[in-house]
Amino acid sequence: MKYGVAIFPSKTLQDKANSYRKRYDPHYALIPPHITLKGPFEASDSEIKTISEKLEQIALDCKPFTLNVLKVSSFKPANNTIYFKLELTPEIERLHHALNSKDFFEDKSEYAFVPHITIGQKLSNDEHSDVFGQLAMVDVAHEEQVDRIHLLYQLENGSWTVYDTFTLGEE
Amino acid sequence: MKYGVAIFPSKTLQDKANSYRKRYDPHYALIPPHITLKGPFEASDSEIKTISEKLEQIALDCKPFTLNVLKVSSFKPANNTIYFKLELTPEIERLHHALNSKDFFEDKSEYAFVPHITIGQKLSNDEHSDVFGQLAMVDVAHEEQVDRIHLLYQLENGSWTVYDTFTLGEE
Repeated sequence: MKYGVAIFPSKTLQDKANSYRKRYDPHYALIPPHITLKGPFEASDSEIKTISEKLEQIALDCKPFTLNVLKVSSFKPANNTIYFKLELTPEIERLHHALNSKDFFEDKSEYAFVPHITIGQKLSNDEHSDVFGQLAMVDVAHEEQVDRIHLLYQLENGSWTVYDTFTLGEE
Repeated sequence: MKYGVAIFPSKTLQDKANSYRKRYDPHYALIPPHITLKGPFEASDSEIKTISEKLEQIALDCKPFTLNVLKVSSFKPANNTIYFKLELTPEIERLHHALNSKDFFEDKSEYAFVPHITIGQKLSNDEHSDVFGQLAMVDVAHEEQVDRIHLLYQLENGSWTVYDTFTLGEE
């Protein structure tokens, strides 16, 4: 089974992201707007208990933190994904690190962690220039508190279901 | 903001439900397959803390229980919804009662609680006869354990995001 760990931002920020995702993100219907903390990883059904306990400990060791949306950015030339760029604070970096270390299904990705909320992906080059050209100018500055993370698993149709929720800094 | 409380069954059962929902349920993309324990209710953003605490207490007072899928059934003539009918056990009835009592956003619905997983809705009468005629014969018998419930809120596009998860019978 495929699992992942994510933050769902506030309704306000999700609604804003969805206003773009609706048009530009083919994953629009598969998962609400989110910040991926740990990309898809394989684990058996029987491992889920251990994963949950581990996540509870990681969440407990972190504190609620401020999320800052900075601007609309793009991963081009790596790919044509357009996203809300978030401030890389020590808190979110620490959380990401704990979730991808060798103690927890190590992620050996060669990419640096760029915290973001995807608003468009799998665009053609022309679409990308067009959409990014318009959105790069939009003021999306926004600040909110994050106090929880979610463990999700993927269904056969590609959509994601929440299995558990962990509050940061709380038993 | 609109909130609701639901159970997400296992991946196996969700995949089975989705194989029908994909074709027959226009809410397919808005929420994963679920059992509604408390239908949409309005609460302000500031009430969410109190709601969460209340739900934690309700979950704590309940124990994990067995979910039994009995057969495919329909709400016709009330409406054209087709669903997996679940056994009305004392445990799920108690949970539903606690979540809809006058202590917790009382639901004065005149309908009796019929625990179910919707697999088709908003069908025309002809579609309903057709689809229900086929599905009523399908053996969907299935049993699994339920040990958690989720509090969700609705986004502007009609989709639902999980806010919190509560484990039954556990602090």
